[in-house]
Amino acid sequence: MLRRKMAETNIGALLVTHLPDVRWLCGFTGSNAALAVTPKRAVLFTDGRYTTQAREETRGARISIAKHSALKEACALLAERARRAAFDPQHTTVAELDLMRSVKRGFFVPLPSPLIATLRLVKDAGELIRTERAAELGCSLFQEIVPRMRSGMTEIALAAELEFLARGMGAEGMSFETIVASGPRSALPHGHATTARLPRNGFVTLDFGVILNGYCSDMTRTVHMGRASREERAAYDAVLQAQTAAVDAVRPGVACGEVDEAARSVLRKAGLARYFTHSTGHGVGLEIHEQPRVAARQEARLVPGMVITIEPGIYLPGRFGIRIEDMVAVTPSGARVLTQVTKDWMEIDAGEDRTRAKR
Amino acid sequence: MLRRKMAETNIGALLVTHLPDVRWLCGFTGSNAALAVTPKRAVLFTDGRYTTQAREETRGARISIAKHSALKEACALLAERARRAAFDPQHTTVAELDLMRSVKRGFFVPLPSPLIATLRLVKDAGELIRTERAAELGCSLFQEIVPRMRSGMTEIALAAELEFLARGMGAEGMSFETIVASGPRSALPHGHATTARLPRNGFVTLDFGVILNGYCSDMTRTVHMGRASREERAAYDAVLQAQTAAVDAVRPGVACGEVDEAARSVLRKAGLARYFTHSTGHGVGLEIHEQPRVAARQEARLVPGMVITIEPGIYLPGRFGIRIEDMVAVTPSGARVLTQVTKDWMEIDAGEDRTRAKR
Repeated sequence: MLRRKMAETNIGALLVTHLPDVRWLCGFTGSNAALAVTPKRAVLFTDGRYTTQAREETRGARISIAKHSALKEACALLAERARRAAFDPQHTTVAELDLMRSVKRGFFVPLPSPLIATLRLVKDAGELIRTERAAELGCSLFQEIVPRMRSGMTEIALAAELEFLARGMGAEGMSFETIVASGPRSALPHGHATTARLPRNGFVTLDFGVILNGYCSDMTRTVHMGRASREERAAYDAVLQAQTAAVDAVRPGVACGEVDEAARSVLRKAGLARYFTHSTGHGVGLEIHEQPRVAARQEARLVPGMVITIEPGIYLPGRFGIRIEDMVAVTPSGARVLTQVTKDWMEIDAGEDRTRAKR
Repeated sequence: MLRRKMAETNIGALLVTHLPDVRWLCGFTGSNAALAVTPKRAVLFTDGRYTTQAREETRGARISIAKHSALKEACALLAERARRAAFDPQHTTVAELDLMRSVKRGFFVPLPSPLIATLRLVKDAGELIRTERAAELGCSLFQEIVPRMRSGMTEIALAAELEFLARGMGAEGMSFETIVASGPRSALPHGHATTARLPRNGFVTLDFGVILNGYCSDMTRTVHMGRASREERAAYDAVLQAQTAAVDAVRPGVACGEVDEAARSVLRKAGLARYFTHSTGHGVGLEIHEQPRVAARQEARLVPGMVITIEPGIYLPGRFGIRIEDMVAVTPSGARVLTQVTKDWMEIDAGEDRTRAKR
């Protein structure tokens, strides 16, 4: 696949250093790697910490344990074997490029387009299964954690329980720092769990993801502790309607900007668009943030096999915030929501064990 | 401090995009930031997700919420206010530099040396306290987790307990993916927790860190489940002796390479140096890996206020591995070990509750 693309785009040799790309291409998961790809072979350079692990994990590439710098030795190999080599300017620092050029000046050229990110955009059957399993684990976690929510417990305590349950259910880790944003803190779109306590009366936003077999999940639910005001309830309904409209807009051939607009226009009609301060979603896979960007005016079109998040939200500074997020896979005939757990309005009795789902 | 250094090195304006540097300079912890620094003022550019958070966290910089690209708007501001601006080539990608140059060609020049990393090398009193508190939390965790180790439990279950305890003790998160490498897997220097089970008889390496008030801890202990062979015990003693020798070598004015050599020479004498396949340590602070590198032939000299890890290890592929790691602060008169918990030989009865510390 990569080699066909390399041939099509007239690339003789390629240096890959972005770790998720290395993993995607050859399976190696270590923290130091440079993969040299030529039309005939691929060689993975890493260091002595990974001798055994590289042998266990790597497929389709020879392994070379670098004495000093994996990057430099990969460059030297390419310089011997090819007339020029491409690199990924999105994932190569200016300092790394200086080092690469010190091996052979004029030899490295930037890839004209994000070759591997583009290949990774469309998940194959195995990747889709792994992504779906990660999303399912996220849903199970949400169902486990809601009955444990009590007003007065700290956000950190809730995050700790969530993460402990995740590990117990087989997660390798969390795909990003768990967000628990309660009460007025729900107005922080990226409010990491703090020592703030869940309110007797107010929203709590939970945004979390697990890593399972290397693949990330990502979901958000906002629940209400205690009785909500009419305004809070109406705001929730507007966000849910926006989220559903965007999910409904997902199908092959639709531009990402159209999906974003589907959510934004609902909030515009509700007079809430100015509080929707971020984009609608992003791709997800081996990394928590991948292509495509589901944002205003993005012209990239959806293709079967893409997996994106749909996560509109509104944030009223100092008051409250609401976000609802699902993962959605683009299918040949439309879309499949991978996050199969309720997003209905949920009020949690502040002091009690009981969760009331009302509609 | 930064401005004095900028003046000394004749830098009129500076673009800072590396997030830990942004946090270190102005306190902002969001995931999207570009800080424009001129001799007279600093402006932090971020996006709409962080409007409230930026106001709460940022000190010493004006805040500007970017409409499209925080990076591009920071560049535009610098281009208006300065004749040229420096950037950090270690933390700027080739693609970002292209974007920066599209704002004003010939305006951005790479910093000749890692200015902010160099400033961050030496921790001030507040940072030292936060680092020490993080290290102390790590030690408490180790003491809590050892009695819970049972042969037959999975590495993941142990990691989950450790991380749950960490959260319960106030950690914001783990500073890196917890390493639990048991039995023959202890020969993987970076063996993340898997579904492998703790052995009835063999080593278990625990390498973990917490984040507390933004600062990272990092420690490793290797314990033995069941009775060890004479060879295992001798190998442990050699690693401990190497680790202690390196700790003893830490004091102001000593080159990092000398500290590395102190550990390496002990293992050389024991005939084990070929199994010590990585460097002795690294700086630690807001990031888990910072300057300096404590590795062979590193000429950088220790200065009071630096905090480094000392973590020699040996790895016999397919058989076993041992690593012992402390955090050490360089003081005016020598060094202070921040990881104040036993590294004595520890045998854990495989099926029982009892931990025997023997010497």
